[in-house]
Amino acid sequence: MSIFKAEIDVGIIENAVRAASILVDEAKTNINEEGMQIRAVDLANVCMVSISLKALAFDYYDASPLSIGLNLTRTADLLKSAKKDEHIEMEYLEEKNRIKFVLDKLSYSLALISLDTIKKEPKTPKIDLPVRVVMDGKEFRRAVKAAEKVSDYITFDAKEDGLKIASIGETSEMSLDILKEDLSAFDIEANVHSMFDLGYILDIAKALIGAELVEIRIGDNYPIKIRSEFAGGKGEIEYLLAPRVEE
Amino acid sequence: MSIFKAEIDVGIIENAVRAASILVDEAKTNINEEGMQIRAVDLANVCMVSISLKALAFDYYDASPLSIGLNLTRTADLLKSAKKDEHIEMEYLEEKNRIKFVLDKLSYSLALISLDTIKKEPKTPKIDLPVRVVMDGKEFRRAVKAAEKVSDYITFDAKEDGLKIASIGETSEMSLDILKEDLSAFDIEANVHSMFDLGYILDIAKALIGAELVEIRIGDNYPIKIRSEFAGGKGEIEYLLAPRVEE
Amino acid sequence: MSIFKAEIDVGIIENAVRAASILVDEAKTNINEEGMQIRAVDLANVCMVSISLKALAFDYYDASPLSIGLNLTRTADLLKSAKKDEHIEMEYLEEKNRIKFVLDKLSYSLALISLDTIKKEPKTPKIDLPVRVVMDGKEFRRAVKAAEKVSDYITFDAKEDGLKIASIGETSEMSLDILKEDLSAFDIEANVHSMFDLGYILDIAKALIGAELVEIRIGDNYPIKIRSEFAGGKGEIEYLLAPRVEE
Repeated sequence: MSIFKAEIDVGIIENAVRAASILVDEAKTNINEEGMQIRAVDLANVCMVSISLKALAFDYYDASPLSIGLNLTRTADLLKSAKKDEHIEMEYLEEKNRIKFVLDKLSYSLALISLDTIKKEPKTPKIDLPVRVVMDGKEFRRAVKAAEKVSDYITFDAKEDGLKIASIGETSEMSLDILKEDLSAFDIEANVHSMFDLGYILDIAKALIGAELVEIRIGDNYPIKIRSEFAGGKGEIEYLLAPRVEE
Repeated sequence: MSIFKAEIDVGIIENAVRAASILVDEAKTNINEEGMQIRAVDLANVCMVSISLKALAFDYYDASPLSIGLNLTRTADLLKSAKKDEHIEMEYLEEKNRIKFVLDKLSYSLALISLDTIKKEPKTPKIDLPVRVVMDGKEFRRAVKAAEKVSDYITFDAKEDGLKIASIGETSEMSLDILKEDLSAFDIEANVHSMFDLGYILDIAKALIGAELVEIRIGDNYPIKIRSEFAGGKGEIEYLLAPRVEE
Repeated sequence: MSIFKAEIDVGIIENAVRAASILVDEAKTNINEEGMQIRAVDLANVCMVSISLKALAFDYYDASPLSIGLNLTRTADLLKSAKKDEHIEMEYLEEKNRIKFVLDKLSYSLALISLDTIKKEPKTPKIDLPVRVVMDGKEFRRAVKAAEKVSDYITFDAKEDGLKIASIGETSEMSLDILKEDLSAFDIEANVHSMFDLGYILDIAKALIGAELVEIRIGDNYPIKIRSEFAGGKGEIEYLLAPRVEE
């Protein structure tokens, strides 16, 4: 018999669910004694997300190893209607193949999806990225939003003196230039430049909306890793996005 | 000569108008020395609303018996643009067959609708409902909103131990269970269960958005009465909604 | 070599750009030692706007005489995403034929439009308007919004005792009547009445949304001038709108 029973602030679980729901409607969710993990890749195989939330982030947590097929869109919908600091109880109902959410007197149960019908969990590729930047989350979101008005692509450049996030359109250009001394962390082994579809980066920026700091790892025409923490460091969201190669 | 001249807070008269405008665009409005009353039934003959607002709720009130055809949609539009605590003057202009609204220096006059063209006022049916519940307005609205994500129907069940508001969909279920000791009032003569179209209940919940308490009377596969007060008890809104019989 | 380099609060330059962008997407912008000026007329030749912003309104200002073709829509979009009290730097890049905006570390450059393709700047017609009213900006906007629910036209009437802004529809009428003693200023040489397309007046009211006072000059079936100040009196917006002649 598999067990999953937990209590947590709505805002924390919402963060986790939203981070995955920008890429997929449903995902395999792995639960064990350590906590919860979701790993998913979008239909186009362009972007991968890994989310983990430690058992310590929960007010109550009791689980045996278990994988469930979670409808993220429905779950996100439900969580949206609750207040962020409200308490939510979650429980796996094995016989009914459902997950039950309880918000005060209100209970809600959702059918789980067969794992056979869910896109397989991706393997995490091993990639070595020579630049690591930790920057202010607000500044990251601002650069990404400014790029939206300019073109459909966004570039990340790192040189010894700092980071440039830019977008070049036919009639306008934007760039956010941050000197290394204005970054929270900056490690560079080589100068790099990569370009990405702005749509994905916009979705990622939105999913990380509460993050104070964002860690970015960049290579040269290589995938980008964008990572942030939530739940006071007990949760972690990491995106790996394939580059768009320039002509 | 018929007279109607009154002054009141915008928020109060808006409450009354909105409660009717969720069901009908125009309604016969009865005015007399005691106050104002609207009774209307929607086109589908499924839901009836009775609104009454006592003369005492007004800051100034002078009226002789009179029935007018009021365009609720236009009136609600006008009131929406004013602040809730603003003062509004209303006056019936008999020769012009209009009603005049004055908000500070701004005046607005609206043609009245011939009573011949308005759907007849319904008679209030005599029905005996064995369960009476008084519950928190916010909790009522929350249950109704949660049901929206689940299916198009909502059920009300009362047993000796309390009230259950629930909705069952193909992939999810919700229920709000309130024990009798957590209700403001609970009188029960028999166990009951009735099901309703959620669309109506959602509209009603929206119309009662300011209500701290909601009184509900339920029968067994029978109409439901949902009632609340406004204007500090000097106004009353009551809906009577036909059940949807389950197959 | 032409120079334009300036620093200002975002809110001030946004006011100026928005005032013109309600009428045209792009406009010739004149810059000189005194400040900036935009004069533009809409495609239908019904409404003209003149905007001026003195060099004194800027925190830093250095300019030699220069005319640029500015894409107002794109500029307004950019400014909208910044906070009103944020600081913006603007610089004309002559070789690139662009204007550069810098908001903190974020820079944005926008291609200028050839002045040949922009609708010619209108000449300011000399017109003599016998009534001058200075009224509360909020009251002006309120009257205009109330008219929206009534018809597509709005009339301005001035008589010795004051101003009436009104709109007459098939089933409703609105009017704002302000006695001369309730106006901030009221000079009248003759009774006047003019009617205007409400769409334009609504746009103007929206563009003047921050204005505490609005100055209006009216004639008899004649154009109306609507003027207000911004940037603490160092900026000025004036609209001249042709009347709609009544049948």
